[in-house]
Amino acid sequence: MHPEALSEQIYSKKSFLCVGLDPDPEKLPICLKSQDPAEGIIAFNQHIIEATLPYAVAYKPNFAFYESLGSIGYSVLEETLKCIPPHVMVIADAKRGDIGNTSAMYAKAVFDRPGVDAITVAPYMGKDSVMPFLSFKNKWVFLLALTSNPGAQDFQFLTSNEKPLHEWVIQKSLEWSNEGEGHLGFVAGATHPEDIPRLRTLAPKSFFLVPGIGAQGGEMEPVIRHLAPRVLINIGRQILYASSGADYAEAAEREARNLWEGFKLYYNW
Amino acid sequence: MHPEALSEQIYSKKSFLCVGLDPDPEKLPICLKSQDPAEGIIAFNQHIIEATLPYAVAYKPNFAFYESLGSIGYSVLEETLKCIPPHVMVIADAKRGDIGNTSAMYAKAVFDRPGVDAITVAPYMGKDSVMPFLSFKNKWVFLLALTSNPGAQDFQFLTSNEKPLHEWVIQKSLEWSNEGEGHLGFVAGATHPEDIPRLRTLAPKSFFLVPGIGAQGGEMEPVIRHLAPRVLINIGRQILYASSGADYAEAAEREARNLWEGFKLYYNW
Repeated sequence: MHPEALSEQIYSKKSFLCVGLDPDPEKLPICLKSQDPAEGIIAFNQHIIEATLPYAVAYKPNFAFYESLGSIGYSVLEETLKCIPPHVMVIADAKRGDIGNTSAMYAKAVFDRPGVDAITVAPYMGKDSVMPFLSFKNKWVFLLALTSNPGAQDFQFLTSNEKPLHEWVIQKSLEWSNEGEGHLGFVAGATHPEDIPRLRTLAPKSFFLVPGIGAQGGEMEPVIRHLAPRVLINIGRQILYASSGADYAEAAEREARNLWEGFKLYYNW
Repeated sequence: MHPEALSEQIYSKKSFLCVGLDPDPEKLPICLKSQDPAEGIIAFNQHIIEATLPYAVAYKPNFAFYESLGSIGYSVLEETLKCIPPHVMVIADAKRGDIGNTSAMYAKAVFDRPGVDAITVAPYMGKDSVMPFLSFKNKWVFLLALTSNPGAQDFQFLTSNEKPLHEWVIQKSLEWSNEGEGHLGFVAGATHPEDIPRLRTLAPKSFFLVPGIGAQGGEMEPVIRHLAPRVLINIGRQILYASSGADYAEAAEREARNLWEGFKLYYNW
């Protein structure tokens, strides 16, 4: 997907919403729990996608939720991807990263799936672990920079030469990205509102994928003020489990619309 | 697997060998390429395991190679795991790591597979991304510390308060491991011979999983001298593709035996 195609979605829908498709079998609406597990989850994802599509510019399935299903996980993900129209970005949240030849296998495994536009990648192993993903033309890497979880404090703020680790990650990887045919963006958690202006300065043109609003407690206002319009705001649980009853799709649609109306408060379209 | 059970294997076989089960469909022996792809890879893995079992104390399937097979990957891995006796360690080389509730899904996905004893984990996201793996009783985490690839130079040596990042990773995670019921080891590449004595000092009692000997150019001597007997030396390509002919299993056995004889040069059993 070309960055202009992503921007086109953002402007036409007036939205930054990325829906996290992380179906937890234990949290499925009761009416779906009685079905065959694979069919129940596929139906759930399909109804969530249909309900949120007017507001969503991207969907982000986290691979952990599909791998934990065992052998049926692969086809559940495949059927889910079929429900997403090609002009809407699909981000494989897999947080992969390995030595060069192995990252190449992961990149192939992910980008060979029809419809996958982007993947999240972990930076710890450095350039040769990231480049195989960045070499795919018009595919996207969202590199972990400053993550939304409490553990972000453990290493990502360690300072070397007066620069915290996550700044090294952003600056070095921006250099690498000139060598690839893909597009580089960053993961930055909304749980770090005071750091977000600095991140935008470090990567003035990059897209940011922002988790941490909703269940994790991050605020929307600083994210949009400093990162829009090149930002994707991921919301998972708040939409998926807005209702545990038979009205889960309507409830998801209502949550998505509320978020969308929130965007208008902070961004002047 | 209890650490004593692993040590028992090491002493009884007089070996540190971990065989990397990374089957690349393009490198399979010609006689197996004509088969159904899944069956060809399962047969290959089975024959490699049978040939190397007298010398191997662990097997390490890298998940990238199975995921890249698409929908058949899950069952190929499952059939492969069935070929490994329960007293021999199986390390899922998956390099996972995500926010707490998602790491918990990954941990379940990996440790629910019969026979998997250990997983490799990436440290960037910190404590809550690692603890879900370390909470499984008698399961193992091998945390990436100093990796074998060129990209290890990009971030792992960044120095904060006079300590390189990989030292922070080792020291902080050793603190965390007191809170879990699993066992913590570290990944350290043989491509850093000058750093290995220091790593042993940092983690005097830990097992190290050491890639980088063979195809990546690392030396065996400093690894064994400083890390044995609590070390697993991973060899993949050198064993798997010792011959591309019908004698691939005999060639793999010969390579494994040669490595085993090399261990005797540097360690006094």
